[in-house]
Amino acid sequence: MCRWMAYSGDPILAHDLLFRPEHSIIDQSLHAKLGGFTTNGDGFGIGWYGNGNGEGAAPVVYKSTHPAWNDENLREVATQIRTPLLFAHVRASSGTPVQRSNCHPFRYGRWMWMHNGSLAGFQEIKHDLLMAVDASLFPGIEGSTDTETLFFLALTFGLADDPPTAVARAVGFVEDVGRRHGVEYPVHMTVATSDGESIWVFRYSSEKATSSLYYSTDVSQLRRLYPELEVLDRLGADARFIVSEPLGELPGAWNEVPEGSWAFVRRGEHGIQPFHPTVPA
Amino acid sequence: MCRWMAYSGDPILAHDLLFRPEHSIIDQSLHAKLGGFTTNGDGFGIGWYGNGNGEGAAPVVYKSTHPAWNDENLREVATQIRTPLLFAHVRASSGTPVQRSNCHPFRYGRWMWMHNGSLAGFQEIKHDLLMAVDASLFPGIEGSTDTETLFFLALTFGLADDPPTAVARAVGFVEDVGRRHGVEYPVHMTVATSDGESIWVFRYSSEKATSSLYYSTDVSQLRRLYPELEVLDRLGADARFIVSEPLGELPGAWNEVPEGSWAFVRRGEHGIQPFHPTVPA
Amino acid sequence: MCRWMAYSGDPILAHDLLFRPEHSIIDQSLHAKLGGFTTNGDGFGIGWYGNGNGEGAAPVVYKSTHPAWNDENLREVATQIRTPLLFAHVRASSGTPVQRSNCHPFRYGRWMWMHNGSLAGFQEIKHDLLMAVDASLFPGIEGSTDTETLFFLALTFGLADDPPTAVARAVGFVEDVGRRHGVEYPVHMTVATSDGESIWVFRYSSEKATSSLYYSTDVSQLRRLYPELEVLDRLGADARFIVSEPLGELPGAWNEVPEGSWAFVRRGEHGIQPFHPTVPA
Amino acid sequence: MCRWMAYSGDPILAHDLLFRPEHSIIDQSLHAKLGGFTTNGDGFGIGWYGNGNGEGAAPVVYKSTHPAWNDENLREVATQIRTPLLFAHVRASSGTPVQRSNCHPFRYGRWMWMHNGSLAGFQEIKHDLLMAVDASLFPGIEGSTDTETLFFLALTFGLADDPPTAVARAVGFVEDVGRRHGVEYPVHMTVATSDGESIWVFRYSSEKATSSLYYSTDVSQLRRLYPELEVLDRLGADARFIVSEPLGELPGAWNEVPEGSWAFVRRGEHGIQPFHPTVPA
Repeated sequence: MCRWMAYSGDPILAHDLLFRPEHSIIDQSLHAKLGGFTTNGDGFGIGWYGNGNGEGAAPVVYKSTHPAWNDENLREVATQIRTPLLFAHVRASSGTPVQRSNCHPFRYGRWMWMHNGSLAGFQEIKHDLLMAVDASLFPGIEGSTDTETLFFLALTFGLADDPPTAVARAVGFVEDVGRRHGVEYPVHMTVATSDGESIWVFRYSSEKATSSLYYSTDVSQLRRLYPELEVLDRLGADARFIVSEPLGELPGAWNEVPEGSWAFVRRGEHGIQPFHPTVPA
Repeated sequence: MCRWMAYSGDPILAHDLLFRPEHSIIDQSLHAKLGGFTTNGDGFGIGWYGNGNGEGAAPVVYKSTHPAWNDENLREVATQIRTPLLFAHVRASSGTPVQRSNCHPFRYGRWMWMHNGSLAGFQEIKHDLLMAVDASLFPGIEGSTDTETLFFLALTFGLADDPPTAVARAVGFVEDVGRRHGVEYPVHMTVATSDGESIWVFRYSSEKATSSLYYSTDVSQLRRLYPELEVLDRLGADARFIVSEPLGELPGAWNEVPEGSWAFVRRGEHGIQPFHPTVPA
Repeated sequence: MCRWMAYSGDPILAHDLLFRPEHSIIDQSLHAKLGGFTTNGDGFGIGWYGNGNGEGAAPVVYKSTHPAWNDENLREVATQIRTPLLFAHVRASSGTPVQRSNCHPFRYGRWMWMHNGSLAGFQEIKHDLLMAVDASLFPGIEGSTDTETLFFLALTFGLADDPPTAVARAVGFVEDVGRRHGVEYPVHMTVATSDGESIWVFRYSSEKATSSLYYSTDVSQLRRLYPELEVLDRLGADARFIVSEPLGELPGAWNEVPEGSWAFVRRGEHGIQPFHPTVPA
Repeated sequence: MCRWMAYSGDPILAHDLLFRPEHSIIDQSLHAKLGGFTTNGDGFGIGWYGNGNGEGAAPVVYKSTHPAWNDENLREVATQIRTPLLFAHVRASSGTPVQRSNCHPFRYGRWMWMHNGSLAGFQEIKHDLLMAVDASLFPGIEGSTDTETLFFLALTFGLADDPPTAVARAVGFVEDVGRRHGVEYPVHMTVATSDGESIWVFRYSSEKATSSLYYSTDVSQLRRLYPELEVLDRLGADARFIVSEPLGELPGAWNEVPEGSWAFVRRGEHGIQPFHPTVPA
């Protein structure tokens, strides 16, 4: 089990997002509170948009195999990143090697993808899953994780055109392959993906017991709740956080993304829908 | 706070020492039970004697800045090490950089040294401490930790001739320097050192609140207690473990090294004495 | 282009093989003399048999992403390895990530495999090549290199039963796939593989311009040539080296493995044959 | 021997400085042309000012122990850095460990320092040199290199007030200590240091045989020489490069900093003076 956070809103310093919150994602790398693993020390990664590379540009990623909590370069680089859309992920390997190419977020063109969870029996079904990846996309696969395979299946099934439908098809396909290999509960995932303008998140598991996922309350409402909290003034009206674990204990600040649903966030808009994998024809 | 273990006894496979016990040192790197830190992921190291380099030869060390729990080379190399005397250490940095030269155990000639604890206000007193290190020993200092500085002070004060006296003088010196810098409790340590034949351990803190240290019960006695426990048959009659945390839950198997004492173990012999720092003249 | 060496003979200390020769493999990592690249600093690996794990046991591997020349653990560990059969490889990446799972030698069961060269247009043909790997072997693939893919194709085509035939079929298959993708010269390789008793090496490229490969002259003959050379006394009568580059300048000590051939070495036996890829039916 | 480059001028993308030039510093990490070492693969570092942290702010540094040529994060991060003053350094260790804290450039407050060369017999004179470092500065020392020691001696002798005088005193002191230890030629250095506004460079060795150092010709003059060279249009009129090796073959573009001299560069100004170490009283 890993931990991740996604931010969308006014451009903000990555250092403020990663290191300031009381129970920041960096803190979660050392002692997470929810989920089975307290330590997420098998590498980490951040990815961000709005990096001066122009509209629709690919995100920039910084990833390392060292634990996030002791990476000195991360502390330096984070002071140099001002972004309206950031992904951050701390990893607890479910078996695949600890190497940069297995660190999240994964990137393909302008798309990013990160995941908390796993595909059960991945080593056994990997061959069949990879076969289904579009040959033109295949060279983009750099690592060996279940997460990256799921990402490229989603790309194969049309992520760039319709993320919820593509992910539903990818998950349905993995469940079908998994069950044909005798895996009872093939998929466990909280996933975030983005094209640089919107963030889509998914909370789903075949067993209907997915690890936690939260989104932050509307900032204007939080300001009414906590007029004295100056940290809220640093956040724009559109600011949204989507996280594996709340970044602090503020009552009313965090709302659960329900089991078996997907949500999207873009400037001034958001929504939640039920998520149903598409059973392959 | 770190975690360490020392083994003395019949030659045994390092892999059996590091990976077999229920709550092994590797397991403690990921979730220690005692002490303030559950994660000891800021590097690790092992050092061992009896490596075919002949009597009185220097120990061999293997150290890495990655967490012990995900170091694939350690699992490989540990199958190749059969040793009568092994030190293993998993590190939680108290501020100095995570780099190989700061990983324990430290080595000088045939001597090894590892430490759980810290010297309070180390950055402020480091200059004075290093000044006191014998100039002929100084080039042997490779890293930047309080632990290595304490080791070289002990060497300066005669570790090779009389370990308990040398450590008492080194600790007394550090407390004297620390207090002159306004540090109330300068020393907190459980230390292990060896020349390849004996192991000396020290449990002491200026505050008289030192973290835990245990030694294993005599194996013949354990066999009487647990005749059915076949793991004990793999251990020779002389086998002794000295550890920050018990490697398992076996009642009667682990005995606390008392606060403010030092102990030694060598084939067929062991003893415990009170430890009193020597106040510099 | 990488550099590798293989040793077969009386058990010898890895440290003597890796660090003593004038132009050792470690020296070649820093400044190789032959071939396009002077630096082979994109990781390295060693693998060895006869490690006390019993007959037919899997080899032990030690690999790192750091340059071999500055890996302090390698210098330590090499003093602990006494082996009758060792592979050593220093890597210059042809594009795939520098990560442990991409370092040679690769291992599957008791088999090891290392490679100098590349499969041209690998990213484009990778999908087709992986599809051909036996599904039962597929979970054994850990990295993303052309070399490991070629290894698993050879395993699929019967490496364990008949190495020369299996490699001929694997190479023929890669050439067939490559050409169907418009790659003129798909294969460039000097490969070494072993089951722990024999070493098979292959020197072949589609372009008939393969990088260098040498084997050492019979030791008894070398002793007649150089009676004064005491290094030869440390080598048993059966000792053989197969290397990308001679380990020294000794006239008469090194013989080229001809372009387009394969050779084998086992205790007291060796031979060279022409190598012809098998064109798939 | 290492290689370094310093840039001062209009804000420019670090990626353009590090990866575009034909014989860039990254290229020099893999195959330098001048000096004894072709490979500078023992880590690297960059440091830069004007990072949005305000006037007189400390520079930001990014350092790694991996070779610069295969560091994927460097390629990512370099696209995010726009700076008027950048230091870049690729390291070939002269014996001290390959660890981040030994990578250049070194930083103290707003000051940066990098070095190509070495202090002869450093291990023997280190104790005396460190004793001379001001106790208030001492905690700032993080690594174990001769370069960092020289930096802190220069700081002790007044670098912040008068760099040329402070460096002359530091070098004079090292030569004095070295000779008292029987070292004939204690100092070999091309050094660059900056406070964020000016760059000072020094080329000096006790033996009067210092490795190469060059500065770039005035851009307006280069434009007259090479009106067709569009790369020059990306450079402001004030742009200056100071480098261990020319970044390209352009005749007239590179001028040697003479043996035994120091130079400074700041917006619109530069100068060269002879350098004479100050003999301690």
